[in-house]
Amino acid sequence: MAANLVTTNHLPLLSTSTTKTILQPRSRLHATTETPIQQRRRPSFMINIPNIISNLLHMGTAGNPFQENHFIQDSYNRTTPAASPKENISSLQDELHGKSNWSNLLNPVLHPWLRRELIKYGDFAQATYDGFDYNPLSEYHGSALYNKNRLFEKLGLTSSGYNITKYIYAMSNIELPRWIEHSLHANTWSKDSNWMGFVAVSDDTESRRIGCRDIVVAWRGTVATTEWFENAHLKLESIKDVDEEDQGDAKVEHGFLSIYKSKSVTTRYNKSSASEQVITEIQRLVAHYRSKGEQVRLTVTGHSLGGALALLNAHEAASTIADLPVSVITFAGPRVGNDAFGDQLRNLNVKVLRVVVKQDVVPKLPGVLLNERLEKLEGIIGELQWVYEHVGMELRLDVKSSPYLKHHGFDLAGFHGLETYLHLVDGYVSEEDEYRRNARRDVALVNKYGGMLLEELRVPESWYQLENKGMVRNAYGRWVMPDREPEDIPSPFRDCRPLAIHESL
Amino acid sequence: MAANLVTTNHLPLLSTSTTKTILQPRSRLHATTETPIQQRRRPSFMINIPNIISNLLHMGTAGNPFQENHFIQDSYNRTTPAASPKENISSLQDELHGKSNWSNLLNPVLHPWLRRELIKYGDFAQATYDGFDYNPLSEYHGSALYNKNRLFEKLGLTSSGYNITKYIYAMSNIELPRWIEHSLHANTWSKDSNWMGFVAVSDDTESRRIGCRDIVVAWRGTVATTEWFENAHLKLESIKDVDEEDQGDAKVEHGFLSIYKSKSVTTRYNKSSASEQVITEIQRLVAHYRSKGEQVRLTVTGHSLGGALALLNAHEAASTIADLPVSVITFAGPRVGNDAFGDQLRNLNVKVLRVVVKQDVVPKLPGVLLNERLEKLEGIIGELQWVYEHVGMELRLDVKSSPYLKHHGFDLAGFHGLETYLHLVDGYVSEEDEYRRNARRDVALVNKYGGMLLEELRVPESWYQLENKGMVRNAYGRWVMPDREPEDIPSPFRDCRPLAIHESL
Repeated sequence: MAANLVTTNHLPLLSTSTTKTILQPRSRLHATTETPIQQRRRPSFMINIPNIISNLLHMGTAGNPFQENHFIQDSYNRTTPAASPKENISSLQDELHGKSNWSNLLNPVLHPWLRRELIKYGDFAQATYDGFDYNPLSEYHGSALYNKNRLFEKLGLTSSGYNITKYIYAMSNIELPRWIEHSLHANTWSKDSNWMGFVAVSDDTESRRIGCRDIVVAWRGTVATTEWFENAHLKLESIKDVDEEDQGDAKVEHGFLSIYKSKSVTTRYNKSSASEQVITEIQRLVAHYRSKGEQVRLTVTGHSLGGALALLNAHEAASTIADLPVSVITFAGPRVGNDAFGDQLRNLNVKVLRVVVKQDVVPKLPGVLLNERLEKLEGIIGELQWVYEHVGMELRLDVKSSPYLKHHGFDLAGFHGLETYLHLVDGYVSEEDEYRRNARRDVALVNKYGGMLLEELRVPESWYQLENKGMVRNAYGRWVMPDREPEDIPSPFRDCRPLAIHESL
Repeated sequence: MAANLVTTNHLPLLSTSTTKTILQPRSRLHATTETPIQQRRRPSFMINIPNIISNLLHMGTAGNPFQENHFIQDSYNRTTPAASPKENISSLQDELHGKSNWSNLLNPVLHPWLRRELIKYGDFAQATYDGFDYNPLSEYHGSALYNKNRLFEKLGLTSSGYNITKYIYAMSNIELPRWIEHSLHANTWSKDSNWMGFVAVSDDTESRRIGCRDIVVAWRGTVATTEWFENAHLKLESIKDVDEEDQGDAKVEHGFLSIYKSKSVTTRYNKSSASEQVITEIQRLVAHYRSKGEQVRLTVTGHSLGGALALLNAHEAASTIADLPVSVITFAGPRVGNDAFGDQLRNLNVKVLRVVVKQDVVPKLPGVLLNERLEKLEGIIGELQWVYEHVGMELRLDVKSSPYLKHHGFDLAGFHGLETYLHLVDGYVSEEDEYRRNARRDVALVNKYGGMLLEELRVPESWYQLENKGMVRNAYGRWVMPDREPEDIPSPFRDCRPLAIHESL
């Protein structure tokens, strides 16, 4: 089943029907001629081992891939709008947020409204990557590139219908492999914390369209992919400090919990934990809009590690704030906790939709090894409360379903990339159907950070880059790094100070 | 000696005084605080082996390099003009072009006029790299990015005082490792030829300043560095077809000669060879300006392989065009021919100034192995006419002389890069003196294609890149590669058609 409600899965996940190989029929490809497009690249002309290897590989391929009149799928166009018109979807509000576990929107075919909403939330998760300062030479390395009032504008998300109300910062009290990004700069904005996402809220127009005031939390993942999960000290930890009463045996992965809950008075951005920052802000927004008589709900989203944090966040929000409908949309999320944690999420009525690419290894972590071992230990499954389990509904995607993607090779990063996920969601109809011909999301986005697109499409690999890495030529003819705009310099006061409920938005 | 006239050097070059280790005293470095500058970079956030290795290396360094209040040389400023004012240098015209083999301009200290002229010609050689289309997905891969009338403008060389009159294209009739760049595109502009450089001529103002009408030919090197020379089938070939009479035993490296002389009627851009294209254009320009009673000279320049082609070009021009003063400025040029070739250049009164970085291995090629063997065979040196030799004057630079550059490690590409050369020329005074405090050339340029600059300077590595690799978002919200401007599309008619002498400039 592509859309499969996983309940308490004590069974080895790899041997269940959810993981059976889905061999999608490849879409028919049409041989078309296309006007060649011009592309430019200036690689290092110096010795560059990866380049040399890549050149050698090119030399080794039989013939020239573009010499033949290759198929370019005729639906790969450049002259239709990249987004669908917005429709009023308020009539399906509850269903779209998982009231019936999305079963009637995922089957028999993916409902177009749900598809667009998934991409909407995925775009928010993607914004936490696109808006992150990756430059270790920057004093703001690890922060958001722009302030919360113009992040969406800078990333081309102005038409999202949401406004960011708060940035979230996180740190960790335990050593985690390649989690936090440390600036090499002496006067860094923060030695301990990283920008970890944001809280946003739907504006009036969008709220009318979707039928409620939607508070969104988007959590960033990490630069690392599998190595994080492979190297993390996998250890389940009781979640009970989240809410002292009635947490039973719920346990979650130690490392995720540390990022979510750590704080230190010696830091600038984590005098309060990510958990405290986000819950305070959600409470503030809920109170604000409820006082105006509005219907409010919470949607938490994230990719990879961000998906794990989304689950912790949703659990806490549902435990803390009475009668708040909470749903979670994760992409490539790993397993987070044990079955008791899953039970609690269900008891709290937290609705979880997990979008998973079958070739991606991260959703199989960290439980995969444990589960595989369990295959031989079926008899004692009932006693193993520490088994990591997946919770919620699964939308299962297949790289092979897209005629735009490379189907050969093993591109660990490409399979895991959020843009690959969003591309596959956009083309998904059902497990049986081909990739949608009328999919509109810009295919070129897949290669923003990687090279999953077929070469025939002639989209450069990892093309998402700044001109001259941000260097500009100043009035004296010198190439310099401009200072960051003052308004985009992080501020603990502005970005993560706990706000009183009565403060205005 | 840093400036050393190498005549007929049959001796193993590595054992001569020209190659003895020069240990420059390191410039005093001052601990200064500097306003942190903001830098941005968006690397792939996916798995990226080189990044991971680099991160691991960073993690392995003891402490954080920017935590200490590190020295930044106080002369590294961002607010003085990056170029010196232009002075009238016509009084030294002949000396600047090597009349006395530059001896009085190189010693006891490098004359500032010569320094600026070397950088001027080096900038022309650099333009053949900066203006090259490196993108194998482009149908124009291997051509110049812009047409000859606006290349300088696009590369920020408008104030050079020269105008390009012709583009030069080259092919090769023999297999050369990693020499030619082949487009992967079916409708490529050329399957056989690469843009190989240009002919330019000084304008009236510049001609008055320097005292003559200066025709410049700038030759491009290759993307490869040492591997080219290591893998090339090193074989000396008689140069006699260049000029049938009186070439004696002059022989040059087979591969260089093939690039310079190859042509084929089946090609679009090399129906005439690079040699024919460039000589025809020089003849045209010489005739044109001589008919106006002007004094004309030829200066040929190039880096790496381009330096080798510059020597062949100078040899042919001096053999072909009566009474034309010819000088050559090469950067990182390899050895080109045997001693008889060197004798001929001297007999033709071709003046050669070779700028060489002692850490760079390319100028030691291809003769280095042969010469090392000869060390044990001194007795028979006189009989070995096939030994490659360097010709002309040498200006010897040392990476260790610059306080801006990394002195640890072995950066093969960094040592060889033309921007490293130009940076070292700019700071050079003499073998004994420190790097000039008042050097003005923009230090940031060193890292355009590499990472030779100290991290403290916070200039990103290989920062010279297009925004989004040239992708732009079109009116439909889609990311596309725009077509090349029609005026920048290569044209055999416009770029390399042999022109009649009477044609106007």
